[in-house]
Amino acid sequence: MKNYEIKALLIGLTKLGCSRKYTRVNKAELALDLDVSAWTLNRWIREAINRGLVNILKDGRASLYKITERGLIELLDLKKLLEDQLEDFISMKGLVTKGLSEGAYYMSIPEYEEMLHKALGFKPYPGTLNVKILEKYVPLRRILEKYEKPITTGFKKNSKEFGGVGFLRAEIINDSGRKETCAVLFIEKTKHGPDIIEVVAPVNLREKLNLKDGSEVKLIIYLSS
Amino acid sequence: MKNYEIKALLIGLTKLGCSRKYTRVNKAELALDLDVSAWTLNRWIREAINRGLVNILKDGRASLYKITERGLIELLDLKKLLEDQLEDFISMKGLVTKGLSEGAYYMSIPEYEEMLHKALGFKPYPGTLNVKILEKYVPLRRILEKYEKPITTGFKKNSKEFGGVGFLRAEIINDSGRKETCAVLFIEKTKHGPDIIEVVAPVNLREKLNLKDGSEVKLIIYLSS
Repeated sequence: MKNYEIKALLIGLTKLGCSRKYTRVNKAELALDLDVSAWTLNRWIREAINRGLVNILKDGRASLYKITERGLIELLDLKKLLEDQLEDFISMKGLVTKGLSEGAYYMSIPEYEEMLHKALGFKPYPGTLNVKILEKYVPLRRILEKYEKPITTGFKKNSKEFGGVGFLRAEIINDSGRKETCAVLFIEKTKHGPDIIEVVAPVNLREKLNLKDGSEVKLIIYLSS
Repeated sequence: MKNYEIKALLIGLTKLGCSRKYTRVNKAELALDLDVSAWTLNRWIREAINRGLVNILKDGRASLYKITERGLIELLDLKKLLEDQLEDFISMKGLVTKGLSEGAYYMSIPEYEEMLHKALGFKPYPGTLNVKILEKYVPLRRILEKYEKPITTGFKKNSKEFGGVGFLRAEIINDSGRKETCAVLFIEKTKHGPDIIEVVAPVNLREKLNLKDGSEVKLIIYLSS
């Protein structure tokens, strides 16, 4: 069994919670996730157990699995590598675009305004800048959503439901290289497609960075805000 | 090409620096690291390029490789999984053991004492507690060394060389469950084997936790001090 096959198995088991405790594993599901046959999966598991990387516990007919300390070493090593080698930000380019005034609407609601102020540490200029990111960055945006920090999980007011909002700290840079601190918002109930990113800042970005619809901007979005 | 093979390739390239910039890749070395044939490696690379996960740049006869944004997505996803699922500490058991008085010696050197105090945030009791960890934890200790925070990279005094020291925050728990805050030291020029962990604390741990040589203790060592 190759080392990268072991790692694939350990990662698959980690997804199911086996790094923390003895966990029931749906082998059909795991085989599908790993894209291997049931036969191969069983062989991998047997070998991982023999190598002391995985423990098995029988619970009636079910089998529970847990990654051993030795197995965790492999994963911690990988985690360290990724932490050391991957940048802690994602950068993407896009064009300033007219929005649906959604951001401005949300920021006109005192509850949101206050929560934004508290979370961001600055009083946001009332109104968001909408950036239409290039198509190739859309999958990256999905990653961002996994890292977003919550501002609110939503609330009810006058029997109206207001959805959750999250954010990540960012910098926005115009085509002459001038930059401003800002944040990107993740609005749960947005009507925008995934190619639109809403940016808030303490200042009017259109004025400060001399932006018009169609201006190209670069966003540097930090994953650990 | 299986998804986990792609991931193995991306991880291998990451080790070589290809997540940050176009980097020359020694294919023989990479094939060895991945434990695949040169032929398989070339097939993997070709497919990764076709899938838009890796870019290639010809520089005379050499080829430089860089992981694309799409490739980084895969790795960021994996990093997030490991960050979410792996505990941020390692726990290990061991037995209190008589040391070589190395720790006490180092702590008698004013420079070390001062640097320890500054790094740890507490004035360490003069003398370390030596814990002999069980054999199965020794590989875990190697992982710890990757996470250690530097206290000093070493210095010269009276033409004598003093080696580097690092630390990680920890808790030590005795067999009745009583615990104390402490730190584990990583002493560059130690004469101890990798099975001995030196623990410093603001208090006399032997007294406070009622420890004798041979007493069993548990160490909880935090990876992000």
